[in-house]
Amino acid sequence: MKLPKLLTIETLSRAYAAGSLSPLAVIEAVIERIEAWPDPAVWISRFDDDALRAAAEALMAKGPSPGQPLWGIPFAVKDNIDCAGLDTTAACPAFAYAPAADSTVVARLRAAGAIPVGKTNLDQFATGLNGTRSPYGAPRSVFHPDYVSGGSSSGSGVAVAAGLVAFSLGTDTAGSGRVPAAFNNIVGVKPTKGMLSTTGLVPACRSLDCITVFAATAGEGDLVRGIAAGLDPTDAYSRSAAPVLLPTAALRVGVPVGAEREFFEDGANAGLFQAAIDALEDLGCTIVEIDFAPFREAASLLYGGPWVAERLAAIEGFHQTNAADIDPTVRKIVEGAIGISAVEAFRGAYALEAFRQRTAAEWAKADILMLPTAPILPTVAAMQADPIGLNAKLGRYTNFVNLLDNCAIAVPAGLRNDGLPFGVTLVAPAFADAALAVWADRLHRITGAGIGLDTDANLARFAPPPGRMSSVFRWWWWAPISRACRSITN
Amino acid sequence: MKLPKLLTIETLSRAYAAGSLSPLAVIEAVIERIEAWPDPAVWISRFDDDALRAAAEALMAKGPSPGQPLWGIPFAVKDNIDCAGLDTTAACPAFAYAPAADSTVVARLRAAGAIPVGKTNLDQFATGLNGTRSPYGAPRSVFHPDYVSGGSSSGSGVAVAAGLVAFSLGTDTAGSGRVPAAFNNIVGVKPTKGMLSTTGLVPACRSLDCITVFAATAGEGDLVRGIAAGLDPTDAYSRSAAPVLLPTAALRVGVPVGAEREFFEDGANAGLFQAAIDALEDLGCTIVEIDFAPFREAASLLYGGPWVAERLAAIEGFHQTNAADIDPTVRKIVEGAIGISAVEAFRGAYALEAFRQRTAAEWAKADILMLPTAPILPTVAAMQADPIGLNAKLGRYTNFVNLLDNCAIAVPAGLRNDGLPFGVTLVAPAFADAALAVWADRLHRITGAGIGLDTDANLARFAPPPGRMSSVFRWWWWAPISRACRSITN
Repeated sequence: MKLPKLLTIETLSRAYAAGSLSPLAVIEAVIERIEAWPDPAVWISRFDDDALRAAAEALMAKGPSPGQPLWGIPFAVKDNIDCAGLDTTAACPAFAYAPAADSTVVARLRAAGAIPVGKTNLDQFATGLNGTRSPYGAPRSVFHPDYVSGGSSSGSGVAVAAGLVAFSLGTDTAGSGRVPAAFNNIVGVKPTKGMLSTTGLVPACRSLDCITVFAATAGEGDLVRGIAAGLDPTDAYSRSAAPVLLPTAALRVGVPVGAEREFFEDGANAGLFQAAIDALEDLGCTIVEIDFAPFREAASLLYGGPWVAERLAAIEGFHQTNAADIDPTVRKIVEGAIGISAVEAFRGAYALEAFRQRTAAEWAKADILMLPTAPILPTVAAMQADPIGLNAKLGRYTNFVNLLDNCAIAVPAGLRNDGLPFGVTLVAPAFADAALAVWADRLHRITGAGIGLDTDANLARFAPPPGRMSSVFRWWWWAPISRACRSITN
Repeated sequence: MKLPKLLTIETLSRAYAAGSLSPLAVIEAVIERIEAWPDPAVWISRFDDDALRAAAEALMAKGPSPGQPLWGIPFAVKDNIDCAGLDTTAACPAFAYAPAADSTVVARLRAAGAIPVGKTNLDQFATGLNGTRSPYGAPRSVFHPDYVSGGSSSGSGVAVAAGLVAFSLGTDTAGSGRVPAAFNNIVGVKPTKGMLSTTGLVPACRSLDCITVFAATAGEGDLVRGIAAGLDPTDAYSRSAAPVLLPTAALRVGVPVGAEREFFEDGANAGLFQAAIDALEDLGCTIVEIDFAPFREAASLLYGGPWVAERLAAIEGFHQTNAADIDPTVRKIVEGAIGISAVEAFRGAYALEAFRQRTAAEWAKADILMLPTAPILPTVAAMQADPIGLNAKLGRYTNFVNLLDNCAIAVPAGLRNDGLPFGVTLVAPAFADAALAVWADRLHRITGAGIGLDTDANLARFAPPPGRMSSVFRWWWWAPISRACRSITN
């Protein structure tokens, strides 16, 4: 069969089940596509062709099994996450090491039958939201080679949006699992902190780091999240809790009051954000204006407060011996931690708690929030001219999420007249991940942006995430929306 | 009527309701008792006699009301908690200030009809578990003037145990709301962090501090806790959640394995701890041995790790101008924070999370823990000879509780042959406070230690805490235990 532009899990799995496609054929296509993709900055390393073929053949020899829901699905791994057989570099060649074992998350995905293809580029030590801070080059948005891919999970975002793999792993401390989704028109699932083990991850801010999933749809991202998740006693921050539910109808969605809707004079993005609000109203949501100031001020702690000391804590030994090997911008940020006292660290914690208390009043008004994923999409040249100032702008709507212990899903929200993508992010309380995926998927279906490069993709072909609804109710609920989507996207 | 040795809430309220006693008569008795009590170190300040009489008369003029469950009940306030009309000193005269308003908790208790009598002594800045670190003198255990009262809530523990007030407020960071309960044979309720507002409290470690209640019984302590509790938007650490339940029968109680039962060669306390274990078995509990090492190691972070920086953060300005006015031991501890970096603070947070993960494995075996409140009861002379070493021994079983986000209730567990008291503490997950009080009360009733100085007190006269059981079930459950208690205590 002819493979679609985007390698979705559902398409591949259906074709495997129908016998019209084999994992080996997919791997051959993946090898071809990776070689053919014009941007050389997406990958830092990958398994060689024969190793990839052997992985596919090993799965085929055993055959599919119900315990392997990702049987034969190729995926990419951000290169700060250990994947046995490939070095972990964190985009810093002098830091590279050969991991003794898979990270917990990669091990779980392999056990589910997924095939890791290679390691993707990132802002060094996952410090950045733009994708330009790497000696391996700056990956570009799949929509235009002048524009950044977003970061820090730059290569992982591109790899899915370009159809090189079916899904990928990113990480997210300040927004790194969401901004590349927005800049490449795909879904970025940022799970609740602690839900996916960080054992085998090079820390950025260890108390905040999350492993994330880039996927074609919220349903596929949520599927991978569920397979990768699980309590891991080897990760001090690992945790679990009962899923938090959200209303299945009449959801109250908080959006910033007008004065807090900052797009830095980008009118096209402002217009698409308003369209996303209208889309939620079409879905029966109640739009509530919230005061975004306490969220924005909490966010300022991430680089302006003591949390930057976590970035130094993560690489303190390496910094002492190899400071000159660190990207100059990353180094400047990390060295900002030198001299910050423990007293200041606790004062930062107190300030965060005060912001948490203030945001609680806003959360009382809304079940979830919808925000622009990023207010602007800069060019690589603009980014290099103002690497810290522009990066702060990129994080305006994402930086607070891990500090305040929320989960989030970034979804495509339409294409601008200039052909560049725009995305929005839905934010929910911790452990509402599954319920949030249902709403993220509903929104994605009616924004008409397609998936990645396949802007005409028919989303109605894909199953919605199961969420917490019964299957009967789901059918009843989805049938009319699916019809509506079909009329929009066809 | 003749007042009992101990001024319990239930006795006073019943007498008020029967018309056999008035708040003014109680206040006169309180004034007399305070003047007569031989230990001059219990109080730092109190309202003058006429002000106390006026407070009682004002309540009497309005009469009791259902909205005032503490109508006419006299209580004491630890002198690091604001009570309008009296200075807050934190046991440091140079630090004293006149608060503009009541702390949130004192305001709630006043609104419920309770009468604040005065401010009690403490280890300066609530730094200590022994009661000797104060320029206002070292309060003594009500059982023997050679022995410490425990701290830091030293005066508040004595004031209840001596029958000077019906209940008192303490605070607890490392065990300060529990150790004085053990050394004075009363109940110490250490609520879940954030349940009682800390607005108007001089911080010790702001991320850990709790306001606590000393009372005659777990029922009365739990009653006051419930009245004082409530979400307070002015306290950044204020929080609330649905009550966590505990089994009402067949409770699994974790106790340290034999090798971790350290009493520093005090055989009498070791014997009473074993008796408390036997008592729990008599109550139908299942005793489970747990590995106490991860709890003990987590506890070591409180003074050996970066949390000491919180103590400096709390008084940094005062320390800069008035270091010579600080108690030498307290000053030594606080100055230990100078030079600790933010990187070390985050490393401490990582270590704590790792301990939390290890303790989770122990919590899987047990619903609650039972521990000695303190392994030894030192003399004032011994304490002064080894102020830091002995204090660390006192905190062996208490220091971990706030770090690991547990609630706890200290209860009397019997008198030794030398007449000194011994206490145990029940520890439960956050927000299990009400359910824990039920079990704390059951245990208190069968240990036969009475209440404070009234070691013959008949506990069967007092209502148990309501917990989360229906009233019918409660009657059925309590009737035989009450009978059993009566046969023990009469």
